[in-house]
Amino acid sequence: MQYFFQAMGARGDAKYRDLLMMTATEELSHIEFLGHAVALNLEGAPVSAQEEAAQDPVVHAIMGGANPRHILSSGLSAMPVNANGVPFDMSHVYATGNLVADMMANATAESGGRVLASRLYNMTDDPGMKDMLSFLIARDTMHQQQWLAVIEELGGWSSELPVPNTTPEDHEASEHSYYFLNTSLDEPTPEGRWTSGPSLDGRGTFSKVEKVEPLGQKPTLGKAKTGTATQAAQQ
Amino acid sequence: MQYFFQAMGARGDAKYRDLLMMTATEELSHIEFLGHAVALNLEGAPVSAQEEAAQDPVVHAIMGGANPRHILSSGLSAMPVNANGVPFDMSHVYATGNLVADMMANATAESGGRVLASRLYNMTDDPGMKDMLSFLIARDTMHQQQWLAVIEELGGWSSELPVPNTTPEDHEASEHSYYFLNTSLDEPTPEGRWTSGPSLDGRGTFSKVEKVEPLGQKPTLGKAKTGTATQAAQQ
Amino acid sequence: MQYFFQAMGARGDAKYRDLLMMTATEELSHIEFLGHAVALNLEGAPVSAQEEAAQDPVVHAIMGGANPRHILSSGLSAMPVNANGVPFDMSHVYATGNLVADMMANATAESGGRVLASRLYNMTDDPGMKDMLSFLIARDTMHQQQWLAVIEELGGWSSELPVPNTTPEDHEASEHSYYFLNTSLDEPTPEGRWTSGPSLDGRGTFSKVEKVEPLGQKPTLGKAKTGTATQAAQQ
Amino acid sequence: MQYFFQAMGARGDAKYRDLLMMTATEELSHIEFLGHAVALNLEGAPVSAQEEAAQDPVVHAIMGGANPRHILSSGLSAMPVNANGVPFDMSHVYATGNLVADMMANATAESGGRVLASRLYNMTDDPGMKDMLSFLIARDTMHQQQWLAVIEELGGWSSELPVPNTTPEDHEASEHSYYFLNTSLDEPTPEGRWTSGPSLDGRGTFSKVEKVEPLGQKPTLGKAKTGTATQAAQQ
Amino acid sequence: MQYFFQAMGARGDAKYRDLLMMTATEELSHIEFLGHAVALNLEGAPVSAQEEAAQDPVVHAIMGGANPRHILSSGLSAMPVNANGVPFDMSHVYATGNLVADMMANATAESGGRVLASRLYNMTDDPGMKDMLSFLIARDTMHQQQWLAVIEELGGWSSELPVPNTTPEDHEASEHSYYFLNTSLDEPTPEGRWTSGPSLDGRGTFSKVEKVEPLGQKPTLGKAKTGTATQAAQQ
Amino acid sequence: MQYFFQAMGARGDAKYRDLLMMTATEELSHIEFLGHAVALNLEGAPVSAQEEAAQDPVVHAIMGGANPRHILSSGLSAMPVNANGVPFDMSHVYATGNLVADMMANATAESGGRVLASRLYNMTDDPGMKDMLSFLIARDTMHQQQWLAVIEELGGWSSELPVPNTTPEDHEASEHSYYFLNTSLDEPTPEGRWTSGPSLDGRGTFSKVEKVEPLGQKPTLGKAKTGTATQAAQQ
Repeated sequence: MQYFFQAMGARGDAKYRDLLMMTATEELSHIEFLGHAVALNLEGAPVSAQEEAAQDPVVHAIMGGANPRHILSSGLSAMPVNANGVPFDMSHVYATGNLVADMMANATAESGGRVLASRLYNMTDDPGMKDMLSFLIARDTMHQQQWLAVIEELGGWSSELPVPNTTPEDHEASEHSYYFLNTSLDEPTPEGRWTSGPSLDGRGTFSKVEKVEPLGQKPTLGKAKTGTATQAAQQ
Repeated sequence: MQYFFQAMGARGDAKYRDLLMMTATEELSHIEFLGHAVALNLEGAPVSAQEEAAQDPVVHAIMGGANPRHILSSGLSAMPVNANGVPFDMSHVYATGNLVADMMANATAESGGRVLASRLYNMTDDPGMKDMLSFLIARDTMHQQQWLAVIEELGGWSSELPVPNTTPEDHEASEHSYYFLNTSLDEPTPEGRWTSGPSLDGRGTFSKVEKVEPLGQKPTLGKAKTGTATQAAQQ
Repeated sequence: MQYFFQAMGARGDAKYRDLLMMTATEELSHIEFLGHAVALNLEGAPVSAQEEAAQDPVVHAIMGGANPRHILSSGLSAMPVNANGVPFDMSHVYATGNLVADMMANATAESGGRVLASRLYNMTDDPGMKDMLSFLIARDTMHQQQWLAVIEELGGWSSELPVPNTTPEDHEASEHSYYFLNTSLDEPTPEGRWTSGPSLDGRGTFSKVEKVEPLGQKPTLGKAKTGTATQAAQQ
Repeated sequence: MQYFFQAMGARGDAKYRDLLMMTATEELSHIEFLGHAVALNLEGAPVSAQEEAAQDPVVHAIMGGANPRHILSSGLSAMPVNANGVPFDMSHVYATGNLVADMMANATAESGGRVLASRLYNMTDDPGMKDMLSFLIARDTMHQQQWLAVIEELGGWSSELPVPNTTPEDHEASEHSYYFLNTSLDEPTPEGRWTSGPSLDGRGTFSKVEKVEPLGQKPTLGKAKTGTATQAAQQ
Repeated sequence: MQYFFQAMGARGDAKYRDLLMMTATEELSHIEFLGHAVALNLEGAPVSAQEEAAQDPVVHAIMGGANPRHILSSGLSAMPVNANGVPFDMSHVYATGNLVADMMANATAESGGRVLASRLYNMTDDPGMKDMLSFLIARDTMHQQQWLAVIEELGGWSSELPVPNTTPEDHEASEHSYYFLNTSLDEPTPEGRWTSGPSLDGRGTFSKVEKVEPLGQKPTLGKAKTGTATQAAQQ
Repeated sequence: MQYFFQAMGARGDAKYRDLLMMTATEELSHIEFLGHAVALNLEGAPVSAQEEAAQDPVVHAIMGGANPRHILSSGLSAMPVNANGVPFDMSHVYATGNLVADMMANATAESGGRVLASRLYNMTDDPGMKDMLSFLIARDTMHQQQWLAVIEELGGWSSELPVPNTTPEDHEASEHSYYFLNTSLDEPTPEGRWTSGPSLDGRGTFSKVEKVEPLGQKPTLGKAKTGTATQAAQQ
């Protein structure tokens, strides 16, 4: 759905719209075979207290950890929920209208996806499931690559950062753009690529600020207005 | 909260944990001044039908688009909700335990953040708000850079892709790892960096598959089991 | 997504699975042109306080009612949210595994859909939008019909009710199955098809119960257990 | 709550309002005895690692699948959450203001309810729970019937379809109202009551369209507007 | 619903269960007249672009701020959503099984309710709405009182605090129970009833700790385990 | 987050703002050590079907009740979700702008927190976890006290009730402010502190109303308007 909504708002070169729409379609086929895999895996599950399987303690232990809604709500089929039964929701569709921000979101999603598939591969010992997961691991590899390849094609980090790269310079307080801020009470600053050397966009030089100093004064709100249903002591 | 939870699960070199925790703290200060800005901006808002301001048609038009819950629920203060009043929820905390997946999620979040701040800058004409936003735009620049700098320090894409880079090779059906799949009915394949040349991880070569062919057979589920509360026609 | 998940769990005659999957695909195309319609409608929207359009009071009034997240979050594109900006979530995917329950859910969804499209038709005066909506109104007509036609084909209400029609008779306290219960303090029973005559499934006769009588005793829970972190007065 | 909100918006003959309000009240009594049943079932549950029951491996296995929030959050009482602990939310209150759409939603809800109660009946072997469930199964039978009886009383499908039956004819592109659309790549059309014969509303004749043809041209969005915080390559 | 679920889990003296159940019923009647008030207020709202009212700029401005879903989704009726259209959800039912914690939650809810009703009273100039709100303001007064009166009847704060008052003394590190902790960098401690004098439960004396000192060592997680799909650099 | 948002909207004496902000900071440190405790507790958990631990039936039984997302989603780290895996969401941030309503919400939250910590203490037998929980139990004691101490300092219930105490008297139908309403069919009124004697605010005297009488007439909505997409029978 993320690729689908990004495609429907993709302004600029139309080939990125096509790229997004085609991979959106591919992902639907992945859901389709995952959904069927769930239904097939559940085919033999016990649904009654009288069934022999339900009385075996080992099965009982395993089913103790199963999702009861696979029996109660979906009748032994897949549901569009996570491993805790929490429904997926569309607030997770990241589609900003900014092509590079969207590509980063997509590469992130595919990284999370390949991490998840790799963990599932370790947790199962069913050969059919392992086959399916190794296919998904491979396609997630490609999808990570293709979204990052769009950024490379556009010019790479030096051209595309900071995102958005069209924000006018005078909209940015650029004296604050390239230092790492140590906000701890007394920990040393963690040193690395981000504390010295040229910035990734070639526009500045990394530095560090070792101690937070307040930049403005403490805010004060004053008395509450009459008619705001606050307590008398606040007005 | 995302940086905070990533920090609490950061395994490996402890400096990344510190980096995350310090920036988590910096972000809290940003929320703090955004929250105060909202409360200060709302100080003069009309709260009663009798107030003169509420009767001016122009104010009425503007307030027509305002969030009524700023009066009803929070008493002219900030609320932890989006511009539609939908509460933020913690399912958006992406923290996989995989350092590179997390860094990509963070760079993505800061890209979305800078896009949003840039749009808000355009929509306001209050100089104080513009000042505050130009500061946030600058810090989002740095934060995009620092998370991507972690990936560069670890070795860059050629070393860190695919994520996770510890998945054993035989867990991946690698014949499917580097082709772009055209899933359209009859559109041409969108050509680009992702359809030819070396892959970003240096492990393969991009290619394209112009037409989808089914890789397996059509799944069939058969009859429903007795006791599953399906219709007679299904059993 | 509802038709898609129902298809992946459809047990029994495989043609119902195909019916569901094909209409799921058709619905995706509807989302696609709705999404593009939104993006095209937003093409001219003002995004800056300086733009002339934003300063016209009439536009201001109209934009006052617009969704600010179309500018801030999606960059003038469609978002997977309702008219209040609340994200769609997958808990609304009704897929019970029971074919008739699912068909009723689908006919209900298409009824709500046609109600919504009819209301939108009334609210717009853009001819292009009216054209698109009249197409959607027509397809919703067909979709209502096709899901109800499945029930008719299976044998109609007399055969398929009550849902599920496989619940063994001794699992039902059938003396409670065909009376309407008046739960008001002293209102007369609303009379109709449901208070007399044969039941729709041909298994019983409708009647009415004019006054609620308690069927069991008042429940009492007694004292709270030690170790449950209740107050001393409860233990 | 669905029947309650439908009742509060029921326009037309007032007897449907009464019907809805009375059944809403009946449903509250069902929640009341379900809630007490949960609390009574949990009375003996172990709440401490020291209790003997908690150390029995069989109990441990069973409790392993129990909801820990029944101990932690509610102190051995019912909670308004599903079997995965996901809170119920009011977006599931379907109340369109259209009487037939609402009756279909209600019959659907009662079908899902009777499916669920039938599955729970199979899963328990406690005679008291079975008694309570057989009562609920019976009342769900009646409730399915009564909502469908309203539609029959109004004139049945031939009179009430399509929903809403007040949409003016010229708001509907009626050439698209009665064909089934095969959207697959090369599957045969699933034939049935919905591909030939008179439509259920008596207004048309079912047919089928075997192959999708694009009805319009491919949408193009063009360049992004300045000031929308997109990348330079998009503007 | 909160009072209803608390009632169903109320262990100890049964009169508190009755108190809760009766007020739960009273609250349902409040929803009922609020719901009807919404429907009646919406009776004259324009639903079509052609209606005269919809073309009046003042009405347009007002409707610009109205909830479009009252027309689109509910057909001019009440919906179970907040003033931003966000559905109510049952996670807000606070019912801990601890009587005093629940009474405090209820007094809090009624305080929020009376704050809201007072703000609505200020925002409307319709005499009928003001009448209804003044009744709700009065009942919220009583409900605040009655829940706090339960705590007073049980013995008041000196007896009932800390909640729960059955936690064994050796489960509490009581050296940390009565000091206020100043966690700021260099702000003075805000002095008040909570920094000196006897504690409200009569078990201790308030004091203050002016500066945070770490109580334990910095946590370290070490390397990630093989098989967790983390990056090579973490293992 | 609740204390943080209350602080950012705290109008009146600035010391309450500081009090809130400092305790907000303290709570963050509690999350920090809870989060690390989770990660450390999960260090040895089996992540693969091949590991010996995963094959031990007792471990299997225990892990059957574990949250699979701790392996799949977070890589053996804490997640911002409840014990059922439902993400926390910010709608639970109660911040009304009314100081006393907010203090009551906070005392309620700390009561729920101490109830939860006490129950967790009972459920674990790990000495390190017990140590940590006894510290949290102690701090929850203080936090309950400090929020209630603010109310005492402001003048106590007699001064601060009803909340808000600034609602003008003529906005309240005070003849309804001090009676308890018996809404049952025929249960006796539960007698107590709330049915006789002076009210807690000293403004009235408690009484009881034994039987509900309708205060207004039954609402009627009449016919539905043309153009609202209702059924013909409703118009």
